[in-house]
Amino acid sequence: AGAFKIRGASNAILSLSRDELLKGIATHSSGNHAQAVALAASRRNAKAYIVMPKNSSSVKVEAVKGYGGEITWSDPDLCSREDTLDLVKNQTGATFVHPYDDDRIIAGQSTCMQEFLEQTNNELDAVFAPIGGGGLMSGTALAVKHFSPEVEVYGAEPRLAGDAYEAVKLGKWVPAKPPTTVADGLRTALGRRNFEIIHKEVMEIFLVEEEEILDAMRLIWERMKIIIEPSCAVPVAALIRNKEKFFGKNVGIILSGGNVDLGKLGRYFGN
Amino acid sequence: AGAFKIRGASNAILSLSRDELLKGIATHSSGNHAQAVALAASRRNAKAYIVMPKNSSSVKVEAVKGYGGEITWSDPDLCSREDTLDLVKNQTGATFVHPYDDDRIIAGQSTCMQEFLEQTNNELDAVFAPIGGGGLMSGTALAVKHFSPEVEVYGAEPRLAGDAYEAVKLGKWVPAKPPTTVADGLRTALGRRNFEIIHKEVMEIFLVEEEEILDAMRLIWERMKIIIEPSCAVPVAALIRNKEKFFGKNVGIILSGGNVDLGKLGRYFGN
Repeated sequence: AGAFKIRGASNAILSLSRDELLKGIATHSSGNHAQAVALAASRRNAKAYIVMPKNSSSVKVEAVKGYGGEITWSDPDLCSREDTLDLVKNQTGATFVHPYDDDRIIAGQSTCMQEFLEQTNNELDAVFAPIGGGGLMSGTALAVKHFSPEVEVYGAEPRLAGDAYEAVKLGKWVPAKPPTTVADGLRTALGRRNFEIIHKEVMEIFLVEEEEILDAMRLIWERMKIIIEPSCAVPVAALIRNKEKFFGKNVGIILSGGNVDLGKLGRYFGN
Repeated sequence: AGAFKIRGASNAILSLSRDELLKGIATHSSGNHAQAVALAASRRNAKAYIVMPKNSSSVKVEAVKGYGGEITWSDPDLCSREDTLDLVKNQTGATFVHPYDDDRIIAGQSTCMQEFLEQTNNELDAVFAPIGGGGLMSGTALAVKHFSPEVEVYGAEPRLAGDAYEAVKLGKWVPAKPPTTVADGLRTALGRRNFEIIHKEVMEIFLVEEEEILDAMRLIWERMKIIIEPSCAVPVAALIRNKEKFFGKNVGIILSGGNVDLGKLGRYFGN
């Protein structure tokens, strides 16, 4: 489905009982989690009820439909999304799978780092991951703690969405910033249980500017020929910004997804 | 360097004598061969003299400069390119490495198919490659003939640049079509020795339309998250167009390169 979210969604849906599966899975997401739930549900022949805000990108809407997801529209604000989700849950009895504030999701996302460690034969000195809701970051930190505790774990956020950075500084959860960063996958509010794990296990969180995100994205597109979305470029930008600190080290970066609307690339590359 | 051309250029330059290396390598190319020669030459500490037409894309010009290539500008027509190259050769004594009509280049390009066969454990039934000058196609056919003669070898061309298709039908070399196809890497004239090999060893050449090329390119970008250039999408389009014929078969496609100007994506994706 073009992003790491399929890991968490698959794990969550594989852990449901037959009765739960019969009633289907519900979630709200404008992004990659929606596609992942739709795909993971279809693999178990279960229904996926996806609440999507009306302003979702058409590519992501089409992908959800393509995987057989049933879309219910909401307004873009979180209140309307949650209210619409409650309605869907009441009507269908479907099980809600939260995009990140859920232990099954965190465990699923952690498999990415587990594989990364295996594939690099324990040669990593450090790893960078992006922080949005915190599902991937908390899973990454737990995988390192379990399999290779000597690896240093770093998070990366856009300055415009630096709620995890701030929360860790203050030692308590803070709400999300206004959704302005180009890294749209990282605009979400940090999850409570994700915060607890990140606060305890992540060494440092680096902030990056919008221009650094787009420069890093362009670098990966041009030199590695891999399509990554802006959110995915955030840890790349963080490493470039802090390269002196990591000189001579083997640093891993988790590239988290590549779902971009090819019809709207002008905003990234100045077409 | 972002394309298969580094294989041929490396092989050609590695086969030069020390005296030849001292005088440098010369070629004319507006595209990936230019970058490949510049990079391969720099690896042997040799000078690369690249004749590029004035209308070359800025991305490719910058890449050649980045690899240390010395650019001499020509007019876009083939006559001016060849005249300018003669001038450069006379002034420098550099060895000319043709982009494709050269046995060392063909041998270098053939290593792509050799690796492909190794990596797929001889499970391929057929393989598709694009045809421009014919370097990759002739190398691919020779590698199959040598290592796995049971594999069927197919070529793919834009209808607007279908000179190899026509040449094989007629049984004799024909000149290039006007350079109109979006697959700019395949606009070049077919090489004489490439034609001989293709005529003898390639089972069939498929033609595709411009729209099919862009659709195939978009599919690879969106679903595989790999950046490919239009020329590289031509064999993908050819397989999609002929999918019934290959139903149930293991078909390999050589993705030949991903050098696109990210500042000009609008022409592909309608930004």
